[in-house]
Amino acid sequence: MQWIRLFPEGDASQRALLGGKGANLAEMIRLGLPIPPGFTITTAACRAYLDAGRVAPEGLWDEARGGLGGIEQELGRRFGDPTDPLLVSVRSGAAASMPGMMDTVLNIGLNADSIPGLAARTGDERFAWDSLRRLIQMYGRVVLGVPGDRFEAGLVRHKRRLGIAQDAALDVATLRDVVDTFRAIVRDATGQDFPDDPSVQLRGAVEAVFRSWHTGRAVAYRREFRIPDDLCTAATVQAMVFGNLGDDSATGVAFTRDPATGERRLVGEYLPNAQGEDVVAGIRTPLPIDGMAADPHLAGAFAELQEVVARLEAHFNDAQDLEFTVERGRLWLLQTRSAKRTGLAALRIAVAMVDEGRIDPTVAVRRVEPEQLTQLLHPMIDPAAEPEVLTTGLPASPGAASGQAVFDPDEAQELHESGRPAILVRRETSPDDFPGMVAARGIVTAHGGTTSHAAVVARGMGKPCVSGASALEINEAGGLLTVGDTIVRRHDWLTIDGTTGRVMRGRVPMVEPELGEDYGTLLRWADAERRLRVRANADTPRDAAVAARLGAEGIGLCRTEHMFFQGSRIQAMREMILADTTQARADALSKLLPLQREDFVGIFRAMAGRPVTIRTLDPPLHEFLPHAAPEEANLAWELGIGVDVVRTRVQQLREVNPMLGFRGCRLGVAYPEITEMQARAIFAAACQVVREGGAVSPEVMIPLVSAPRELELQRAVVVRAAEAVFAEEGITVPYLVGTMIELPRAALLADQIARYADFMSFGTNDLTQTTLGMSRDDAGRFLPNYVRQGILPRDPFISLDRDGVGKLIAMGVALGRQARPDLKVGICGEHGGDPESIAFFARVGFDYVSCSPYRVPIARLAAAHAALDAGHPPPAMASAE
Amino acid sequence: MQWIRLFPEGDASQRALLGGKGANLAEMIRLGLPIPPGFTITTAACRAYLDAGRVAPEGLWDEARGGLGGIEQELGRRFGDPTDPLLVSVRSGAAASMPGMMDTVLNIGLNADSIPGLAARTGDERFAWDSLRRLIQMYGRVVLGVPGDRFEAGLVRHKRRLGIAQDAALDVATLRDVVDTFRAIVRDATGQDFPDDPSVQLRGAVEAVFRSWHTGRAVAYRREFRIPDDLCTAATVQAMVFGNLGDDSATGVAFTRDPATGERRLVGEYLPNAQGEDVVAGIRTPLPIDGMAADPHLAGAFAELQEVVARLEAHFNDAQDLEFTVERGRLWLLQTRSAKRTGLAALRIAVAMVDEGRIDPTVAVRRVEPEQLTQLLHPMIDPAAEPEVLTTGLPASPGAASGQAVFDPDEAQELHESGRPAILVRRETSPDDFPGMVAARGIVTAHGGTTSHAAVVARGMGKPCVSGASALEINEAGGLLTVGDTIVRRHDWLTIDGTTGRVMRGRVPMVEPELGEDYGTLLRWADAERRLRVRANADTPRDAAVAARLGAEGIGLCRTEHMFFQGSRIQAMREMILADTTQARADALSKLLPLQREDFVGIFRAMAGRPVTIRTLDPPLHEFLPHAAPEEANLAWELGIGVDVVRTRVQQLREVNPMLGFRGCRLGVAYPEITEMQARAIFAAACQVVREGGAVSPEVMIPLVSAPRELELQRAVVVRAAEAVFAEEGITVPYLVGTMIELPRAALLADQIARYADFMSFGTNDLTQTTLGMSRDDAGRFLPNYVRQGILPRDPFISLDRDGVGKLIAMGVALGRQARPDLKVGICGEHGGDPESIAFFARVGFDYVSCSPYRVPIARLAAAHAALDAGHPPPAMASAE
Repeated sequence: MQWIRLFPEGDASQRALLGGKGANLAEMIRLGLPIPPGFTITTAACRAYLDAGRVAPEGLWDEARGGLGGIEQELGRRFGDPTDPLLVSVRSGAAASMPGMMDTVLNIGLNADSIPGLAARTGDERFAWDSLRRLIQMYGRVVLGVPGDRFEAGLVRHKRRLGIAQDAALDVATLRDVVDTFRAIVRDATGQDFPDDPSVQLRGAVEAVFRSWHTGRAVAYRREFRIPDDLCTAATVQAMVFGNLGDDSATGVAFTRDPATGERRLVGEYLPNAQGEDVVAGIRTPLPIDGMAADPHLAGAFAELQEVVARLEAHFNDAQDLEFTVERGRLWLLQTRSAKRTGLAALRIAVAMVDEGRIDPTVAVRRVEPEQLTQLLHPMIDPAAEPEVLTTGLPASPGAASGQAVFDPDEAQELHESGRPAILVRRETSPDDFPGMVAARGIVTAHGGTTSHAAVVARGMGKPCVSGASALEINEAGGLLTVGDTIVRRHDWLTIDGTTGRVMRGRVPMVEPELGEDYGTLLRWADAERRLRVRANADTPRDAAVAARLGAEGIGLCRTEHMFFQGSRIQAMREMILADTTQARADALSKLLPLQREDFVGIFRAMAGRPVTIRTLDPPLHEFLPHAAPEEANLAWELGIGVDVVRTRVQQLREVNPMLGFRGCRLGVAYPEITEMQARAIFAAACQVVREGGAVSPEVMIPLVSAPRELELQRAVVVRAAEAVFAEEGITVPYLVGTMIELPRAALLADQIARYADFMSFGTNDLTQTTLGMSRDDAGRFLPNYVRQGILPRDPFISLDRDGVGKLIAMGVALGRQARPDLKVGICGEHGGDPESIAFFARVGFDYVSCSPYRVPIARLAAAHAALDAGHPPPAMASAE
Repeated sequence: MQWIRLFPEGDASQRALLGGKGANLAEMIRLGLPIPPGFTITTAACRAYLDAGRVAPEGLWDEARGGLGGIEQELGRRFGDPTDPLLVSVRSGAAASMPGMMDTVLNIGLNADSIPGLAARTGDERFAWDSLRRLIQMYGRVVLGVPGDRFEAGLVRHKRRLGIAQDAALDVATLRDVVDTFRAIVRDATGQDFPDDPSVQLRGAVEAVFRSWHTGRAVAYRREFRIPDDLCTAATVQAMVFGNLGDDSATGVAFTRDPATGERRLVGEYLPNAQGEDVVAGIRTPLPIDGMAADPHLAGAFAELQEVVARLEAHFNDAQDLEFTVERGRLWLLQTRSAKRTGLAALRIAVAMVDEGRIDPTVAVRRVEPEQLTQLLHPMIDPAAEPEVLTTGLPASPGAASGQAVFDPDEAQELHESGRPAILVRRETSPDDFPGMVAARGIVTAHGGTTSHAAVVARGMGKPCVSGASALEINEAGGLLTVGDTIVRRHDWLTIDGTTGRVMRGRVPMVEPELGEDYGTLLRWADAERRLRVRANADTPRDAAVAARLGAEGIGLCRTEHMFFQGSRIQAMREMILADTTQARADALSKLLPLQREDFVGIFRAMAGRPVTIRTLDPPLHEFLPHAAPEEANLAWELGIGVDVVRTRVQQLREVNPMLGFRGCRLGVAYPEITEMQARAIFAAACQVVREGGAVSPEVMIPLVSAPRELELQRAVVVRAAEAVFAEEGITVPYLVGTMIELPRAALLADQIARYADFMSFGTNDLTQTTLGMSRDDAGRFLPNYVRQGILPRDPFISLDRDGVGKLIAMGVALGRQARPDLKVGICGEHGGDPESIAFFARVGFDYVSCSPYRVPIARLAAAHAALDAGHPPPAMASAE
């Protein structure tokens, strides 16, 4: 057998070949659990099919026929046998879990001839016709590409004619008519008949599953979760079991631990007398799983389920998410996988499983994705707030979010691209809504439970979601919702709380979250693993204190210019800029010096001896000047100079491309007295803190260097200032002088620059702008489209462009260390807090990353992952589960 | 001997060690020419002195004493002997000629004690005292750093007291007083006495010559002419001969051919009864050299000079520039070197010397610096113009220039840096004026001949110069000049014609020059040597015709957007930009298509089958929109839309950093219909020209690519358009699709990009802006200072930054060729016409350069030099002579 594996032939280690679903079904068979028999068509077959331009590889169908033979033998029933037909499902399953992204076809093998046989075996003619109806509908939509709403409309016509509301109320005669209608719809839409031949059905379904690997939503999902495009999907072919054979049948999903909170208890939902897709699609709102115990028809199956759940968790040592069917009282498992969970749940489960002796701390660290911590660190509704609660739905994915209401996924994307937060409001979501869900800050649905598509996907992304908010009457086309007397229109503000299920009007105040004990435990374990140090970008004593609290091991970027904008300081700064002699400039600078010194004292104290990297003045001078006439006049009056002097200077300093203009060390080279003042303020502050008995470790960082001599000149100014201050104060403080590498030329000449640098900190924001020739301020008009079209894999301002910028960085590090083996290397751009980028920085040998204070914990965890990956690469895609 | 060489020990090949002056003096001794005896202290000694922090290397002074012994022996006169003192000069001389940039001290060895001896030997007591006066003055200024004007003022006081004007009228008694005054000035300024010890004088003079390697003007000169800083200077120590011993003595300079026109005749100037520096400094206006023949005191020496000149040219096979002195009827040569010459002269001399059988064409090609051709290609005064001629001076350096009058070299730099042309007007220039002369478009002096400092330096730079315009009364401090009744003030416009010597008021119309036969001959020889092809940047049929006439082998850059600005086209362009649907955009584009097609037809015809590289739309769209309210209103009215629509669109398109914004292929990716229209226009034009019987070779170039997929997408649009047009026209035309590499990321990913590129053209303008993070529009505020401070060796927008941008280019070429060995590689930035950059492009394996049409001949010659250098590197610095 080249292209298929019977279930008993596989095991859990074969994810790459069998997909997650196929591998785990095999594993469950090995455990002796109740699994309907079947086989898996491998990902290799899918890859061969797609590579050959959608042609099935030689031998595939013969092997599939053989696989069916195995099922037939086990069940004593034959595929295509009109008297007792074997029906099968065909489901997708890739190595990485992509819930709901790809296609499934059920009831394959049924046709008009075998209806009586199925009716006879089940004793339910209505069921048999409904099964054929479902097959034609599903096959028509998935395999033949007939728009799903045409079938819906056809069904509605029949129901309206009969004046009934529920599908369940359709009788045999009507269902026959519906089948005829559906056949006509297929013929009309495709010019061909629905295939009654079971072999044709099977082939069609398998190929459709393969093709669904390339649907837009699947591609978008893979991009969002960084799943490689060449994994491909497997297809499982499995004997059908039916949850819709009466009150002693049911279908459901179960989690071994609460995927929202991590609590150790069985949670889940079920629908009696239903087929699986009824749950996932969110069409009928299911019941809490505990209810099964109280249902005499299902209590036995539920007891068995509880046993199975315990065995599965013990076997896989991770929280599981199962799909099951009860057919006439008998439990069947259709799938198990590692449960998608919120950050809170991930943390609690990981720590609890260490406590339970199931896994060791290293595994626990790996089990929490760094980005998941953002959910814990993100704000929650201020308990003191008194919001206008419109309704309370199901708490489907925890966290709070505010945004403008949109009723269309595309509009969520548009708002997102224009930088405005959106709350996506839908009756229910479908996989097609996925890109809009990614773009939204939060999601509300009127229908569906906590395992509906919206809930599962939102939890996967760590995005707040309220589902089943059935009080909302949603008019998607009209772009409004009503709840009681209240109307919320498109672009009105909404706030949702996925932890409690509340949907509120307006923007409700939020507060910082409390971090629990599990959080501290996990991060301690993470710190023990990582090599990369984590610093924070902080400009004020207050930021520095927050950073220290969140575990920053230093400050990697203190932007001194932010200090100049505060209060009256801007005035002295403007005076300095308007000075027309070196002396006047020095006078203005001398007013700024004590202010800067005080700030540095506060920061040094907060960091208690940890290194503090202070960047000298960076932004173009025009950023400090007024830009409107009245402000200019006011400034002139305050400084006692002519308004024309102010205006002329403003004009002179205006720039066509300020990003590439007179800024960074270019200012310090032109006006060394500015650098000197800043250096004096730094060293005077350092001496003061030392005199108080504190420890300091200042690092002066020169920005925007493009030539070695710029650094040589600026370094000399800093060293001179240091010596002068130390002489005045009678104290000597160790310090470093280094540079930012934020221009391509600096990376290319890093060996020459390293001669004057004790450290190099890559400024990846500007380095990205110059390497790609993209202004972050202006890229909004084309960048989202570039990511959508796959021109760039990710927004390079969020996740480092490894191909381009990364190549330059690797070159810069190698050159710098070649010239100076002890060179300290770090990064202080936005990418310092992005886990993927951190993995890259670890790989090319950085000493530290620096990020915004609130991302410090994420960076700590990401650095631990990077260290663990360096030692023992993780099993393929394990982290995507 | 480690640090010195006696003249007879050296020869012309030892330039690097002995400097040009020392090596050629040695060579002339070997030829048996009349050279005062002496020796050369080597450049190695200078380097050792400077490297050791201005400490003379061990043994130097002992060896110098030995060298003096050799001179003493030959002349029978001893250094420091009061009865018959040997006097020597100490002169600088580097391997590269740097006329007037470094220092000289004459009459070394004289003091109060030896005055009577010198007076007795020369029979001229006045001469003896004047020689001591000159020594103290020169030594005080050059060695001891006393400001020269203090001596001038002292001398003037004495002359005023006596009521005389000329130095020559000072009698012995007064000269004794002057010597006392000068000694007092030295004491006052330095706190020490003028050293009467001849050995101290010698050491002081030699060290001063060494130190003068680092004066600001010498550093600036080396930067201008790309002379390495580590060459260092030699110092020649040579017995004095005196041109100021009466009417049978003289000093002068001679050129074996006319350095302005190249004509084969002895030209030069002399001053009877004068010392050499009187000529060079331009203080007295010298006489034409022919006059010597008519002077009975000097006729004999002149005859000998004519003979010597012929021997020197025959020996060196190049036009020579000699310094000589006649001492009491006897001719002495003090220096010979390759003559600095204008572009016209360089061309004529090179071609004539081939005709004369002296050199072969390869040497002739090397003898003309590419940049010199600009002088031939630059405009001259329109013969039909009727300018207001203020005066006519000496035609010191040919060519015409207009600019704003400035009377201060610093101001010439300021004007230059703000992009305005300056004419530098000076009484006379000194080496300190050099940076201002570089910055000016042309130079006028009231004093000095055609071998004055101003004239020599201007010719070296190929800059127009009128010298000795003695009718001009120049008030440098007041910033004005008067000539008759006319006053020309600072910043008034002047035009000068260095070919005729005319100085004119205002901006006089100019015309293109005629190119002579020698020009064609030399460029034919150059074309035979070069490997690199030379194309032109041309946007219109007219430009294309000029380019073809100047020898362009194709068009390397045709900017299609320039076509859109013309006449009514801008309207259609604006309509396209304001379109809010794809259809409306297509409609507007369809109006532009026939206009573009016509332009391309014209260009293809002009290039007659040579390749034409057409770049698709590049600039940001806002460049096409109006920027003022009335214009916006007008546009709205013309298009029949609301003015708010126009205004909103203008607002939307505004960018913070347009250089890094929505432009280049980002436009084509967003609006493929624009690229499609342009491609259709190109191919339709190509088909039309082919149908007419012409040949075409279109190359479509996609700008600003940063990711391989951009090119893949745009290439597909172009290929689709080509196929559609070929199908419609029934004609197929071969074509290429390629890309510009103008962002660092494109160079870093050149291997991946090459998969979709038939060619790559480096856009070095933008690549320089992004690699250095410097906007060309904004760098004016710091870049000149950066070049002055040596932070960058040259303006990187003029001469390619080889360290940074060059490294990236070399990487890009290697990666591109690795992926696609047949990849065609070119360059279409400003650097395509810069000889130094061309040498680099040749070295890294480019196929072609493309530059502005008028620089095509320069590029052809530069490419020939590059090819010759690759085969046989030139002797060190020969080209700087």
